[in-house]
Amino acid sequence: MQPDAQLRELFNPESIAVVGASRSPLKLGHLILSNLISAGYRGTIFPVNPAGGEILGLTAYPSTADLPRPPDLGIIVLPREKVLQAMRELADAKVDAICVITAGFRETGRDGFELEMEMADLARRRDITLLGPNTLGLFNTAINLNASIAQTMPAKGSISFFSQSGALCSAILDWAEGESIGFSKFVSLGNKAGVSEADVLEALGDDPDTKVIIGYLESVNDGRKFLTRARAVTEKKPVIMIKAGTTPAGARATSSHTGSLAGSVEAGLAAFKQAGIIRVENLETLFDLARAFAEQPLPQGPNLAVVTNSGGPGILAADACEAAGLNLARPSTATLDRLTKALPPFAAIYNPIDIIGDAKAERYRATLEAVAEDETTHAILVLLTPTASAEITETAQAIIDISKTCDKPIFASFMGDERIGPGRDMLLAAGIPCYAYPEPAITAISAMLAHYRWKNRPYPVEVCFRRDKGRAERTIQAALAAGVAELPFNDAMDIAASYELPVPETRLVRTSDQAVRAAKKMGYPVALKIESPHLASRGEVDGVALELNTPREVREAWLDITTRAQRKRPDIYIAGCLVQTMGPVKAREVVVRFTQDPQFGPLISFCLAGPSAEILGDISYRLAPLALHDVQDIVREIKSFPLLRGVRGEEPVNLAAIEDILLSMSQMATDFPEIREAELNPILVDAQGAFVADLRVTVGPI
Amino acid sequence: MQPDAQLRELFNPESIAVVGASRSPLKLGHLILSNLISAGYRGTIFPVNPAGGEILGLTAYPSTADLPRPPDLGIIVLPREKVLQAMRELADAKVDAICVITAGFRETGRDGFELEMEMADLARRRDITLLGPNTLGLFNTAINLNASIAQTMPAKGSISFFSQSGALCSAILDWAEGESIGFSKFVSLGNKAGVSEADVLEALGDDPDTKVIIGYLESVNDGRKFLTRARAVTEKKPVIMIKAGTTPAGARATSSHTGSLAGSVEAGLAAFKQAGIIRVENLETLFDLARAFAEQPLPQGPNLAVVTNSGGPGILAADACEAAGLNLARPSTATLDRLTKALPPFAAIYNPIDIIGDAKAERYRATLEAVAEDETTHAILVLLTPTASAEITETAQAIIDISKTCDKPIFASFMGDERIGPGRDMLLAAGIPCYAYPEPAITAISAMLAHYRWKNRPYPVEVCFRRDKGRAERTIQAALAAGVAELPFNDAMDIAASYELPVPETRLVRTSDQAVRAAKKMGYPVALKIESPHLASRGEVDGVALELNTPREVREAWLDITTRAQRKRPDIYIAGCLVQTMGPVKAREVVVRFTQDPQFGPLISFCLAGPSAEILGDISYRLAPLALHDVQDIVREIKSFPLLRGVRGEEPVNLAAIEDILLSMSQMATDFPEIREAELNPILVDAQGAFVADLRVTVGPI
Repeated sequence: MQPDAQLRELFNPESIAVVGASRSPLKLGHLILSNLISAGYRGTIFPVNPAGGEILGLTAYPSTADLPRPPDLGIIVLPREKVLQAMRELADAKVDAICVITAGFRETGRDGFELEMEMADLARRRDITLLGPNTLGLFNTAINLNASIAQTMPAKGSISFFSQSGALCSAILDWAEGESIGFSKFVSLGNKAGVSEADVLEALGDDPDTKVIIGYLESVNDGRKFLTRARAVTEKKPVIMIKAGTTPAGARATSSHTGSLAGSVEAGLAAFKQAGIIRVENLETLFDLARAFAEQPLPQGPNLAVVTNSGGPGILAADACEAAGLNLARPSTATLDRLTKALPPFAAIYNPIDIIGDAKAERYRATLEAVAEDETTHAILVLLTPTASAEITETAQAIIDISKTCDKPIFASFMGDERIGPGRDMLLAAGIPCYAYPEPAITAISAMLAHYRWKNRPYPVEVCFRRDKGRAERTIQAALAAGVAELPFNDAMDIAASYELPVPETRLVRTSDQAVRAAKKMGYPVALKIESPHLASRGEVDGVALELNTPREVREAWLDITTRAQRKRPDIYIAGCLVQTMGPVKAREVVVRFTQDPQFGPLISFCLAGPSAEILGDISYRLAPLALHDVQDIVREIKSFPLLRGVRGEEPVNLAAIEDILLSMSQMATDFPEIREAELNPILVDAQGAFVADLRVTVGPI
Repeated sequence: MQPDAQLRELFNPESIAVVGASRSPLKLGHLILSNLISAGYRGTIFPVNPAGGEILGLTAYPSTADLPRPPDLGIIVLPREKVLQAMRELADAKVDAICVITAGFRETGRDGFELEMEMADLARRRDITLLGPNTLGLFNTAINLNASIAQTMPAKGSISFFSQSGALCSAILDWAEGESIGFSKFVSLGNKAGVSEADVLEALGDDPDTKVIIGYLESVNDGRKFLTRARAVTEKKPVIMIKAGTTPAGARATSSHTGSLAGSVEAGLAAFKQAGIIRVENLETLFDLARAFAEQPLPQGPNLAVVTNSGGPGILAADACEAAGLNLARPSTATLDRLTKALPPFAAIYNPIDIIGDAKAERYRATLEAVAEDETTHAILVLLTPTASAEITETAQAIIDISKTCDKPIFASFMGDERIGPGRDMLLAAGIPCYAYPEPAITAISAMLAHYRWKNRPYPVEVCFRRDKGRAERTIQAALAAGVAELPFNDAMDIAASYELPVPETRLVRTSDQAVRAAKKMGYPVALKIESPHLASRGEVDGVALELNTPREVREAWLDITTRAQRKRPDIYIAGCLVQTMGPVKAREVVVRFTQDPQFGPLISFCLAGPSAEILGDISYRLAPLALHDVQDIVREIKSFPLLRGVRGEEPVNLAAIEDILLSMSQMATDFPEIREAELNPILVDAQGAFVADLRVTVGPI
């Protein structure tokens, strides 16, 4: 069957067959059986072992065919060669789902890959949900299900986790145990021959026991499906993920590890962003955020109050706030009055609120009470260093008391180790995240604010543009039929015009007389550009003249351009020159481009024209189709945006004109996957409007 | 006396008077005495208390005057009002050094500031080394000296620490105890009325018991002294520091905390860089690096070998390597052969070397032996996740064994918590840094490589430029005498010419006839620029015409510019126009600028011309005087550097010409602190040379 949206057959089986159950404690077939039993699973377990008899107190069946009734889930722990046959037998026994622990498939080369394809095919044909192969298995703490070869079963909790790396799961479980973090569900994705990250994400999104989803991914099976599902899930709960392999070295390591071809890094990151996924760089942040999201409410704004008994950590917190885009807002006048009364004269009542090194718990309590009631404050961070006067556990108790009646998120950083330990443990037990340093708390608050804003963003406005799709279709099909990849300039212009892009009026002319006549008809000034199918770039022959204002200038430019081209490249055919209307003169130049990503579909990019955007990496990306807020974001996201908004008293450029172009390009990219790449470069834009001065369009069969 | 370079009077006193020693266990005057005694200090301790008698088993003296002999060090723990008098009495008793624990001085406002100034003055006049006030005190574990009010005395070790935040010290000591990190010396700087960070840095640099220096600073007392001392120290040992207050919010918090006016953030960061200090962003990294530098040798190159039993962490490590500028180099052919033989067929023998989840300790050992002998490898990182097969303590032992004969630095990341705990503890005890995640290890290796390169950098070549200092001096003095701040263009050009900067030939002309004659003399093409003392910028009246090639063009431009200026700004006096030779036409434009930082002296900056450098923050900074390698670095450090080197087959610009200008400007800034600011903007530079097209110079009394 198609995987049930909740993956019930995996997470809530009523009976499980373990094919490859073993008596030898050294074997995984023993480990998984003993894990199932010792976790306290209440469904029926059928060990399957050719020798029959009894294993770990359970009756073993010589083969799947001998089972008294069809199990919901079959787990296979056999040598690679026997897996496919075991799957067939489980299919005949009418299981709903199969989990293949065995490794040695896609990740080991061609033979393994082909075997895995056969397994996937079998599962599809027989309507079986397939997890793995090469998976560690899964947990569901709600029903005491430990269907895994991991050594530890986590405590019950509200965090669910999925991972493409099995070994990483064991590290995470060990960490969770040490930190007393509880989990709801836990899935090792393995090679994802059947169940994909998108399936798991959807199931966890629907799971009432899951409050926070965390994940580790190396590759994505189906980018578009992932994006759509993830976006639906992040409306409901936070999804925090690591995407490994985001650098060239990491991507090489990924492809050697998973044997999969990745889409572009940019497309993957755009997908995360557009799906509202909170992307983190490392496991430490993943854990820090998981705890914060699981235990504290979301801040409803950027104003953080920092309360500290030590100036230094307060400054470090202020630095981190600024870097994370949070505000250290000035407390309200009422709060300042209360603090002035409650605190000694040398305390700093502005934010960070430094209650000084001799502060005892009651001073913390009075300050926190004032801050908790301050309506300008959206989140609270309490810093404590173990000074001689510090009352560590009493301060922890004060924080816990205040958090019970406070609707703002509260975080703590008790700095140190052994001395602050008892206070930290009290806070963690009471659901108040307590970090060893201020920075992780601020990272968490900033991520929670981003999630709050994501959930409260305006409803996306989808924009459908008027266009002459039939005309564009004809041009593209003609090019494909002729085997052309990069369209001739005129055809490219034609497609652009079908999408009502603001392209210049253009005519191909063969003589300088024709050029002058065309210019007169269009109106001066005009541009003249060499046209040849053999030139990769007009710059190569200096083949462009701009700002021609008179017939004489047009004739001179014609002579210049054509003779220079003949001299520099005697080998090319010169079709003539293009006469074009000119865009605005004192304009900024921007570039809009799209490519078709193999994983995620059309990827739109935006940047300023010129080599520096690329060198500085100042390019923003989004996956099409773009909604209105996407185009607004993509334009404002580049670091150079102030140059468009105008610096030093300049007029801002017409941003709406750029946004219209982005929406049209998004439509074009979505309408025609045959357009492999299109680039408007440069687009001239000033306060009045935008003007596509040049473009390139490349097509290819889908 | 002037502080001894080793601060012997503070760190190695033979006798100590505690003024304000108290019988009451609630008082700091009791705490510090009991700390001194319980740490096992073997010198003489003189408690001073008006009541006399005995405190904690020691004879107390009613006053300093009653002491049997002069103590080396006096510690004052008295109410603020009594501190100055106590200092006078200690001075009369001929102490070498005084440490004032009492707080409530500069940090509390004007009264406190003035009191502190008196104390500093007294210490200076009486030749006493003054630590504090508002200090937590200090430690020297070598002689069991705990002259502090901190709760814990650290174990002996090779790390020394100084901090401007007292409370932070207590956090750090608590952390150190939990992590079993040992210290040599420990100083809380307090308000730095006497002993400054530069003094302490020098003393720790000379201290044979100190291998690594770590520090936390909010402000610097004397920037130039700090820079010079720190540079000498980093030649000998690593200095790792946090500079707090590097964002606007952090800087506001700093000035409220320390009551000190900081130099610019850019100057501070440039000083750290030029002194070879390893700057870190947070305490966690400070500790991670301290351990790494204390325990492992420096890597002698960028090639890191990663050995892992799990693909996922290997990819995360690869991503982190790329980001940190380390290489995952391919092992040598000999190593690959050994690995092929030692590892199972599905292992990844390239780097990261993935020895797969079922790896036991012996597989780690065989792999590490091969890698340790590989000459292409400069550092080793061993990753372990607690898989079912993992032999955690045995693997730790294998790493320890190999580290004993291996001259490369070895790091570990055992991922997880409880299960990997015993292995981690073994590694830490054996001096192998073991982190919870791969990223901190890679950060440490990268910092150690930077320090290795710093110590092995070429000897700095100081360049002294030919210049006509007298001529520049006369121009500057005349301007100062006239009360002018921004020099008239001609005077600015004159100073530039005195430093042999490549400035255009320029003449001020009053009529278009004069302009044409001047142009003829200079040679075409020329530029014409409006000149008026009342214009902030020529752009305001569109007052510049470039590329004038004929007398007729010069006349037309003259008419254009002057009439436009009169029309747009009828209120200004127009002195005429400047006729200038033109720089190269197809040139890149860069900017060289300097200002005088109140803390660190002349600060040189370099960037591309145009608003985007500022918006994107793509500006590099160095403090003058610049050595040859400094100017090479400052030019190459901007992210846009590839645009100067040439992209898409362009010719590189003449970098040496830019470097010459930087050296001249460095000389000018050093010669004349009266020049508050000078900016060459733009400098036109092409493959042939550089040309200063415009400049501004502002002077002011020193």
